[in-house]
Amino acid sequence: MNKQQLIDNIRRKQSFLCVGLDTDIKKIPDHLLDEAAPIFTFNKAIIDATADLCVAYKPNLAFYESLGVKGWVAFEKTVKYIKEQYPDQFIIADAKRGDIGNTSAMYARSFFEELDIDSVTVAPYMGEDSVTPFLSYPGHWVILLALTSNKGSHDFQLTEDKEGERLFEKVLRKSQEWANDEQMMYVVGATQGRAFEDIRKIVPNHFLLVPGVGAQGGSLEEVCKYGMTKECGLIVNSSRGIIYAGKGHDFADAARQAALEVQQQMAAQLKNILL
Amino acid sequence: MNKQQLIDNIRRKQSFLCVGLDTDIKKIPDHLLDEAAPIFTFNKAIIDATADLCVAYKPNLAFYESLGVKGWVAFEKTVKYIKEQYPDQFIIADAKRGDIGNTSAMYARSFFEELDIDSVTVAPYMGEDSVTPFLSYPGHWVILLALTSNKGSHDFQLTEDKEGERLFEKVLRKSQEWANDEQMMYVVGATQGRAFEDIRKIVPNHFLLVPGVGAQGGSLEEVCKYGMTKECGLIVNSSRGIIYAGKGHDFADAARQAALEVQQQMAAQLKNILL
Repeated sequence: MNKQQLIDNIRRKQSFLCVGLDTDIKKIPDHLLDEAAPIFTFNKAIIDATADLCVAYKPNLAFYESLGVKGWVAFEKTVKYIKEQYPDQFIIADAKRGDIGNTSAMYARSFFEELDIDSVTVAPYMGEDSVTPFLSYPGHWVILLALTSNKGSHDFQLTEDKEGERLFEKVLRKSQEWANDEQMMYVVGATQGRAFEDIRKIVPNHFLLVPGVGAQGGSLEEVCKYGMTKECGLIVNSSRGIIYAGKGHDFADAARQAALEVQQQMAAQLKNILL
Repeated sequence: MNKQQLIDNIRRKQSFLCVGLDTDIKKIPDHLLDEAAPIFTFNKAIIDATADLCVAYKPNLAFYESLGVKGWVAFEKTVKYIKEQYPDQFIIADAKRGDIGNTSAMYARSFFEELDIDSVTVAPYMGEDSVTPFLSYPGHWVILLALTSNKGSHDFQLTEDKEGERLFEKVLRKSQEWANDEQMMYVVGATQGRAFEDIRKIVPNHFLLVPGVGAQGGSLEEVCKYGMTKECGLIVNSSRGIIYAGKGHDFADAARQAALEVQQQMAAQLKNILL
């Protein structure tokens, strides 16, 4: 999916919501555990209940890997289901990969060739040759970690160099030498508040993937105030707040209701930029 | 495996070699492609041919993930085979994971609970709470990226802060607040030469996992000169130089020969410290 198609989807659906499919076998409703494929069954129900309210789905690989081979089967089935039933959805493999060149190329092959997923999150610590192998697939995106939503983001990402540039700012600046805003996005946590202002000075046009609204305590209003562009420029993720909104047989309805509330707040924000 | 057991294995085998199982379906001998499980068949032959010459095996997850479900089956079978047949081997899941706390906990569950692997490589960019969930499994290790072997290591890892501390030095220093040398190791590329001197000032007793000897051009002699401790303190990895030493039906013999050459160089180095 290219940038214009993503913007068109946001306008049409009046939503820039990404539903995070962080599906934990220990948290899904009990009655699903009798199914042959409980994780996929849960995901399918969540997807069917929310697809008209969101523009993206983000399965986090950790939750699938924790189940070994069974988990990978569930991950692949989920991706295929979204691609077949809802081809207008932007799929994000939240994998936070990054390795030396020939190894990153293997990860890129896995996500972009084998599964044809739109995008993958990548960690910047290992630098240019750990990121660029993901960029040789036109129409596929790298979403690079910049300023994450967790407490530990303060440990290294805020370190200032001699010129006063913080590490996350250096990542934003330097990585623009590798790809433009048609193939690169950045992860910026919703919990980072006014840092969005500083970030927009460096990447005025890039889309940002924003986790941390909901369970982690970030505010959608603040994210939009400081991070939104004329083209929206935001994909805001909610995982636990939506997929675990209900615990019983009506879990999919509860997820839909939670997603609808977020979508309505988003529609109000989009009015501000006339999108 | 604890630190003393690892040192005992190094002394007994006169080797601190780790064989990297970066098994690429496109690079293994053609005749294996007719097998039902070519990746596992290749790994098993390599392991049987080298187990007395090395103290560790390091499958890089990228190579298994690139094959989807089939790759995960091969990865799990490989780990089980090593654990059953060669329980004195230290197994490293080279995964370079790292995510927010609850997600890192899922990765830890995957590698340490489900598969009972000794250690996993972790990327430090997201800070403390992305690393500590891996530390709640006694006898299991985090191997944190510090100064990697690739060209891109210069992009961010060498950035100096206002006090002149480089990012990789900050990672080494700060992470010692999270675990000691009984549960934490660091990745330092063999290509980094005299940086090992600086690293030993910060982590005099920690084991270092050293990739980059062989195909990437690092020198074993230089690594030992600047990085070796009284307890050895090094696990030096070679992947392509060993596992692809031969292309024909005798690939396992060729791998053994390549591993033997490295082991002999290592034995000579261990004489210097009387281990």
